[in-house]
Amino acid sequence: MGGIFLSALLDQHYGNQHGLYAVNPKMDRVRGVPCYPSVLDCPEPLDHVISQIPADGLTQLVDECIAKGVRSIHSFTAGLSETGESDLAQIEREIVAKVRAAGVRFVGPNCMGLYVPGVGLSFMPSLPRDPGNVLMLSQSGANANVILRSLSQRGLRFSKGVSYGNGADLQGHELLDYALADRQTEYVVGYIEGVRDGRAFLSALKRLAAVKPTVLLKGGITSDGARAANSHTGSLAGSIAVFDALCRQTGAWRAERMDELLDLATVVTSATRNVRGPNVTLIGAGGGFAVLSSDQIALAGMRVPPLPEETQAQLREFIPIAGTSVRNPVDANFGRDHPLDFVNDAERTRRAFEVICNAHTTDVLFTTVGGWRRPGRDIGPEEEAHHLRSAVDELGDIQDRTGVPVVMIHEEYNIEAVTQRAHQRGIAVLPTVERAARAVADLLEWRKLREGLPDIL
Amino acid sequence: MGGIFLSALLDQHYGNQHGLYAVNPKMDRVRGVPCYPSVLDCPEPLDHVISQIPADGLTQLVDECIAKGVRSIHSFTAGLSETGESDLAQIEREIVAKVRAAGVRFVGPNCMGLYVPGVGLSFMPSLPRDPGNVLMLSQSGANANVILRSLSQRGLRFSKGVSYGNGADLQGHELLDYALADRQTEYVVGYIEGVRDGRAFLSALKRLAAVKPTVLLKGGITSDGARAANSHTGSLAGSIAVFDALCRQTGAWRAERMDELLDLATVVTSATRNVRGPNVTLIGAGGGFAVLSSDQIALAGMRVPPLPEETQAQLREFIPIAGTSVRNPVDANFGRDHPLDFVNDAERTRRAFEVICNAHTTDVLFTTVGGWRRPGRDIGPEEEAHHLRSAVDELGDIQDRTGVPVVMIHEEYNIEAVTQRAHQRGIAVLPTVERAARAVADLLEWRKLREGLPDIL
Repeated sequence: MGGIFLSALLDQHYGNQHGLYAVNPKMDRVRGVPCYPSVLDCPEPLDHVISQIPADGLTQLVDECIAKGVRSIHSFTAGLSETGESDLAQIEREIVAKVRAAGVRFVGPNCMGLYVPGVGLSFMPSLPRDPGNVLMLSQSGANANVILRSLSQRGLRFSKGVSYGNGADLQGHELLDYALADRQTEYVVGYIEGVRDGRAFLSALKRLAAVKPTVLLKGGITSDGARAANSHTGSLAGSIAVFDALCRQTGAWRAERMDELLDLATVVTSATRNVRGPNVTLIGAGGGFAVLSSDQIALAGMRVPPLPEETQAQLREFIPIAGTSVRNPVDANFGRDHPLDFVNDAERTRRAFEVICNAHTTDVLFTTVGGWRRPGRDIGPEEEAHHLRSAVDELGDIQDRTGVPVVMIHEEYNIEAVTQRAHQRGIAVLPTVERAARAVADLLEWRKLREGLPDIL
Repeated sequence: MGGIFLSALLDQHYGNQHGLYAVNPKMDRVRGVPCYPSVLDCPEPLDHVISQIPADGLTQLVDECIAKGVRSIHSFTAGLSETGESDLAQIEREIVAKVRAAGVRFVGPNCMGLYVPGVGLSFMPSLPRDPGNVLMLSQSGANANVILRSLSQRGLRFSKGVSYGNGADLQGHELLDYALADRQTEYVVGYIEGVRDGRAFLSALKRLAAVKPTVLLKGGITSDGARAANSHTGSLAGSIAVFDALCRQTGAWRAERMDELLDLATVVTSATRNVRGPNVTLIGAGGGFAVLSSDQIALAGMRVPPLPEETQAQLREFIPIAGTSVRNPVDANFGRDHPLDFVNDAERTRRAFEVICNAHTTDVLFTTVGGWRRPGRDIGPEEEAHHLRSAVDELGDIQDRTGVPVVMIHEEYNIEAVTQRAHQRGIAVLPTVERAARAVADLLEWRKLREGLPDIL
């Protein structure tokens, strides 16, 4: 097993409490953990074996694992069927035949394996140790890490994560059925390059997506991408039209880009999941920002309707006319004398936000937050994070009181100390108005496509 | 004049060497600079007056400036025609009549005014003090700041920046003609909400865009955006189809989003300006990344053709088979034993990059750079910036030797110490493969649209 990965496991997650054995014929101990020459020499029964040996030793390892009574094997090992070389592909086929005959499950090869925070099992030391309600599956290890890391930074947590590479034995449809049965799992996100058994995948996705929101990013949707997928996990990417139809039929959502998957996962796990319609009210800073944001919201298929006259009149009672607008977008955060600001003017700001949320034209509120760091009034990152958390709590209260979902727009949307609080309060945090608009538009479109399915969105 | 803005000017730019006078009837001195009750009381002649007084005092100030013989006035003041209130719009009309009768130019109102780094004039203390070759015009102050700040972070520098707000007197077409005549200006970027004199704008843009690459972002391209533009600078956004036709006719490029403007400005001021065709070779890390990147490149209208067999064979001489691909995308940066890495394995990495650039299928090279920060081998931000600068120099040398433009993909594309070096070496740095692909595709499309115009792209 590779030094880096093993060290990470030893330091960060296992300790010895779960019965961890290192296997390496060239060493006696690894960081204080005794090291055995083979799995057969380990003194106790083994449940799961994690392997990072070169391809030419893998068959022997599998034989030994079967002899030892191991129940599952995960292999990082690359250089098998995905190379397109027939002798290497043959090794992979032999391994599958062996494990299937023995009733042992094999995860991979060519992948990162299992992330199960509930039992302290992880493949990257930086992933959160606390479990959550999202299951992540991904053939690619790199994309598994992107999804896990990015969504963790936004406050989400995972029931399980599985990177399954070439999917030689354990396949996508089995993971979908697992996600359906798993009580910890309420949401599913995944990255798929190819589907070996289309029929099994379709029926598993149908069962799962009906009852748990499921977002899948398909790699290889162009011919250039499909060629790369074939080099990567040996996957035959298949027709994107078929995969698309499959998602539409089952009520899953197909994301076209990684950002789209991440942003949709963020809003669907927040109170914005309950958004009623396409009408956005935007509270932001700067007229030019308001103009471009309105364009991007409209281009995403949402709307920016003017606030009702009576709402505008109510706002004008405490928002000065120069350099502001109360029509929608509400441009009042930089009003020099009386900016809307939960930290320095909480009472008035709460009142403005509630008036705006109570307008019948507001289906969802987008708001920028910040502006505390200005020329002549610099503040440190800790003070800013503190201010941001206060704003999150205020927005959470307003969301709770008015029932109108709030999306917070903040460039540094991955400050974990802030986004974790936001996620707990049901506030989605996204980096730009454009991405927020697209994510909410996706959600509304997705709900429409699910007509006739259980009302989970 | 507002305390924040004046302080910023005093501290950062003016000093007293340019003859700066503060005017405020309520103060004697501002940070050591003597303060006069009115412009008429200033002891010397005045060239330019910067004003941030409320709207109701503006007419008197303009009268006094005219009496004093001032040549130009810039006013931050908001709360005039953009409010839609007839009495406030009337003030603006009167001011324009006065300055026109007197031959004085008025910038604004409702804007940030002038940024002229060559003479130490700026409206934000954080903008670079060294001048460059890009002229920026923007009605919006917020968007002026976004453009100036973002492009500065990418290493670009400015001849002049003008935020002209409502454009009551000084208008867009005059700035275009100025940009044409200005010898320091080689490129023009702008944010426009509305055009008051369509005919004058068209003919000025025709003269300018024929000989200097010009990228314009139009705000108010949807009806929601147009309504916001009207609230913001009193602009009538007009038809986007007309503005689009105007750009196509003149050889300017209309950007649809702020990112697009920034990214296109980045590539057009780099060696990528000379890209020959749509064929991208991508050197990157991770198979899943390669798949999604290929999809995004293809969706942007570019191509990811396989490298020629002989190039692949040459690469296989020093890139191991397991966990890598040499087809294109070349996935070799994370090869555990022999990663492509200019810092730790410069000789072999140079050889690989040159072999790849010399392939006839490579019109442009996209490459990720980094991977020095890994589990068990952490490095600080300074060491990383140093490594990044080394990589930039290596890529610059390869670009110079092979004539193939190189785009560096790096998430932290705004580390100025790195991007300034990159800009000097003609290396474009962009945050994602998707954005790089779109920017280069835009450039190729733009060149095609300019058929018959001078060969400046």
